[in-house]
Amino acid sequence: MGSSSNGAAGNLTAKGNEVVVDKGVDFANYFCTYAFLYHQKEMLCDRVRMDAYFNAIFENKEHFRGKTVLDVGTGSGILAIWSAQAGARKVYAVEATKMSEHARELVKANNLQDVVEVIEGSIEDITLPEKVDVIISEWMGYFLLRESMFDSVICARDRWLKPTGVMYPSHARMWLGPIRSGQGDQKMNDYESAMNDWHSFLEETKTYYGVDMSVLTKPFHEEQRKYYLQTALWNNLHPEQVIGLPAVIKEIDCLTATVNDILTVRANFLSSITVEKTRLCGFAGWFDVHFRGSSVSPASHEIELTTAPSIDNGTHWGQQVFLLHPPLRVGEGDDMMVTFSMNRSKENHRLMEVELGCEMRLSSGKQLQPLAKKFYIE
Amino acid sequence: MGSSSNGAAGNLTAKGNEVVVDKGVDFANYFCTYAFLYHQKEMLCDRVRMDAYFNAIFENKEHFRGKTVLDVGTGSGILAIWSAQAGARKVYAVEATKMSEHARELVKANNLQDVVEVIEGSIEDITLPEKVDVIISEWMGYFLLRESMFDSVICARDRWLKPTGVMYPSHARMWLGPIRSGQGDQKMNDYESAMNDWHSFLEETKTYYGVDMSVLTKPFHEEQRKYYLQTALWNNLHPEQVIGLPAVIKEIDCLTATVNDILTVRANFLSSITVEKTRLCGFAGWFDVHFRGSSVSPASHEIELTTAPSIDNGTHWGQQVFLLHPPLRVGEGDDMMVTFSMNRSKENHRLMEVELGCEMRLSSGKQLQPLAKKFYIE
Repeated sequence: MGSSSNGAAGNLTAKGNEVVVDKGVDFANYFCTYAFLYHQKEMLCDRVRMDAYFNAIFENKEHFRGKTVLDVGTGSGILAIWSAQAGARKVYAVEATKMSEHARELVKANNLQDVVEVIEGSIEDITLPEKVDVIISEWMGYFLLRESMFDSVICARDRWLKPTGVMYPSHARMWLGPIRSGQGDQKMNDYESAMNDWHSFLEETKTYYGVDMSVLTKPFHEEQRKYYLQTALWNNLHPEQVIGLPAVIKEIDCLTATVNDILTVRANFLSSITVEKTRLCGFAGWFDVHFRGSSVSPASHEIELTTAPSIDNGTHWGQQVFLLHPPLRVGEGDDMMVTFSMNRSKENHRLMEVELGCEMRLSSGKQLQPLAKKFYIE
Repeated sequence: MGSSSNGAAGNLTAKGNEVVVDKGVDFANYFCTYAFLYHQKEMLCDRVRMDAYFNAIFENKEHFRGKTVLDVGTGSGILAIWSAQAGARKVYAVEATKMSEHARELVKANNLQDVVEVIEGSIEDITLPEKVDVIISEWMGYFLLRESMFDSVICARDRWLKPTGVMYPSHARMWLGPIRSGQGDQKMNDYESAMNDWHSFLEETKTYYGVDMSVLTKPFHEEQRKYYLQTALWNNLHPEQVIGLPAVIKEIDCLTATVNDILTVRANFLSSITVEKTRLCGFAGWFDVHFRGSSVSPASHEIELTTAPSIDNGTHWGQQVFLLHPPLRVGEGDDMMVTFSMNRSKENHRLMEVELGCEMRLSSGKQLQPLAKKFYIE
């Protein structure tokens, strides 16, 4: 055999009508990544991410001074440590992986063991001795919702946040905008050469080994198509690659959102091309989150963390790019109606399936053939 | 957060004294890879692999004509189809993944549905209506035993092979030999730059974010060391990179071997450098398997499949390379005593841990400091 890498198997089983997550499989597929320090370091090296949380905490110390804080998915423990340094009375730092041991060492090395209590376990299973004033968490995945980690934050909030409590971050938004990019041509070439390669493979297998494999052409075609053309790409785009008006397609109030509110994201919006003669190569999705405190206790300094295309402030999240094949020739003033919907994958609730539609009306008045594409955020 | 890839979590839990494999986790970590056609194609494009099985079957038709055959882990179904084409009366093709559906299509497309029965399930769970004359399987992982798939072949043999039955392949051997390679220097550079990078990261985190992370230096060091220096590398070496006499460190008779026989591989052997003035950069491990039939019904044409370093006949298995840091300056006639032991990883029974010792006595009579290194086959 000879298999070099792990794949990604399903972690869901249907039990009657309710969907059950196999925790062991979910751990194998998901959590384990966070048990590696190099991965923690990658996040700790994301200046945009670090500055936003750092400023959110230290420019709003009144939310932390003398307060109790819960950090959901503390990882290396950085947010819990900052909360303590900002004056928290007690910080519960919950981490599902063995990274909890490193977090504990880090807390001790920074002399905060009397304030920060690291608890190894999943937030759904653990118990706290008290309710908390603040829930802080860095739960955002690619295009905000990949990883479905906000589910755990919601669970933590409903179980452990005081009625007067504050969420850090307090709000989140998803954005979608039309882009130009060279990646699509490359991907199409890769896809086509994979298919050409397949056809010579078919001939060889028939000629040398007497087996006709052409019945597998369609499924191979679909597998490769999904891999090369339908899987959203990670990219830190240049702002000038955004060729039209982006739109907010989802707003989340972290204090009130339910799991039901985030299971599906649906949006229709009008956009128009804002640059001369170019190619609409696809759409890019990104997010921002805000630290505004709550209506009863607003932040004294609102902080924003955005993963929008930027010249200097790229993040490890980048943007998720959905490519159209082939691109459309468009120009300034062309209008489009975009329809977007995103659902969780049936096989793995932490991955997403996207349906993107686009109806383009050129400024000439000409109506282009409507597009409807399916994508996967893996 | 933002995690792009799967890690590899444990699939073992200790239940009293016996070790239990979590099947869901094992599927997530292991089997799922084989559900992708591109991965099947990679194996089907391995000419050395294909030719060996093809010739083993068609040059020994007497083992198949009118016989019952079991293919363990049939994947695309190729071995089952060849067995049927060679005249088998009935072939049971067992596959744990959804690839079974493609195998079934392929069997039908090649008009063998009356002979080949594709069964989706793990060999440990399924039941056959009869015992079989031949068990054929392509079960070999990197350095033969990675993936621990031979366990399933043993299970199949003990449950379903007739006393007079034949194993395809019938024998397997593991080889180890001293090599020279440029990879080690590269890996050491990567490792050192990762560590330098870590130290500037520590400074930044302290200066800008007020957290002292130096307590994590040791574990990060160990994590990176394991990743860059202690993980066996895949490589198709040139025969001239082998600088001394390789040795057989394990022989397996597929008809009689038990799981106990393959849990651990231990060997001590003497080797000597056979090229002038060079560097001993490490050791390479590879394997070969043989199709000899059995003593009661020997093959009319013995076939060998080897993954040894080769100019023209590289395989998708390549060799597993264990690098020494730093390399040793050696020359023709220098002798070494090599001690090797390989065990299954405690976290994942399909991965391996290797301990390699080397005592070098130069032809000058000078004895070098004995080496003892630990490696991981991931």
